[in-house]
Amino acid sequence: MVNEGDSQGEAEGDPGTVRPGGRTARVRAAVLRAAEDALAEHGFARLDLGDIARRAGVGRTTVYRRWGTVTALVADVLADMAEQSERRADTGSLLADLRANARLVQRTLTDPRQAALFKAVIAAATSDARTAEAMHRFYQRRISEWSPCVEQAIERGELPEGTDPAEVIRAVSAPLYYRLLASGDPLGPDVADRAAEAAVAAARAGAYVRIVP
Amino acid sequence: MVNEGDSQGEAEGDPGTVRPGGRTARVRAAVLRAAEDALAEHGFARLDLGDIARRAGVGRTTVYRRWGTVTALVADVLADMAEQSERRADTGSLLADLRANARLVQRTLTDPRQAALFKAVIAAATSDARTAEAMHRFYQRRISEWSPCVEQAIERGELPEGTDPAEVIRAVSAPLYYRLLASGDPLGPDVADRAAEAAVAAARAGAYVRIVP
Repeated sequence: MVNEGDSQGEAEGDPGTVRPGGRTARVRAAVLRAAEDALAEHGFARLDLGDIARRAGVGRTTVYRRWGTVTALVADVLADMAEQSERRADTGSLLADLRANARLVQRTLTDPRQAALFKAVIAAATSDARTAEAMHRFYQRRISEWSPCVEQAIERGELPEGTDPAEVIRAVSAPLYYRLLASGDPLGPDVADRAAEAAVAAARAGAYVRIVP
Repeated sequence: MVNEGDSQGEAEGDPGTVRPGGRTARVRAAVLRAAEDALAEHGFARLDLGDIARRAGVGRTTVYRRWGTVTALVADVLADMAEQSERRADTGSLLADLRANARLVQRTLTDPRQAALFKAVIAAATSDARTAEAMHRFYQRRISEWSPCVEQAIERGELPEGTDPAEVIRAVSAPLYYRLLASGDPLGPDVADRAAEAAVAAARAGAYVRIVP
């Protein structure tokens, strides 16, 4: 879900893709990009701040002073991924919106670099509580970004009152992550479309109406 | 999904829980149990055949000769987990069957030892192709075990002709794994029940009818 337009390595090389904010922002962009590359190539266990500084063309001291630990750097990678992620769709149709969401997740999880990056973060989160927290924040932000698609469908009368928007958004992504991480079944665009259709059908039937305690 | 009745450590200590087949089977059971403990405690990266032999009270040579590598041993752990897993439900009602499946997955993923074991295997599979293959076989077997619940519902006329049973079973587990591995949202029995209800609603609406190419 990272902005693929910013994949040129050295930010200075292509002014069109430089994130706004001057040198500090350019250093952050270069370091985060280098951290993503290292995560995708070797995983979390072999991350090293010195190696990332070298890849980014940035002084080691800068990296150690700004991020301090590998865990803090990965948390910043996740915050940046959330910031750079695509905005939600707004087509006026719940099914079309959720299909756009499912296709975005499916493209992300089948892009070799992005899939490796997500797998590395998810693997790290299974054994590192701070990485898990940062990853959960990433997913909360993505769920919040897409929830208005469901809220609008409720307002339009497409879905029952009391439907939990977050639960519908989770239902779109879940089958894709299950295939990526557990069952290993193919993960094509047809699977994405089916995930969107199933979420809409279940939501229409009231399966995601909030449970009042 | 491991048979919790066999958690006494040394198989000899409790004849009622010994797996059938004599000494070879007892050695396998003790080594697999020790490998599960080591996986749950320290993860895949720190598995060591010598340490596992010591935990199991079995000679190192036996373990090296029989399994050879950590990857082969983990593949055998997964094969054993599939063998020992609970059989499918057969209540005569699709919703009740799928709720039993969802509750079984939910109990497994919230049991501390089992959750740690599954997370360790899933994390290892993100970077080890042979572990990924063994894990995919585990999920294929679990999906096949529960698919007849859906087949019978189609025969009873509860679901449209052409519904893909495996896809319905995947839909039950997917929201639970998504919460465990990605979003970090709570994973209570209510989530399991909702996963079963959503899968039934989507299946009734035809969302899992096989796509004919």
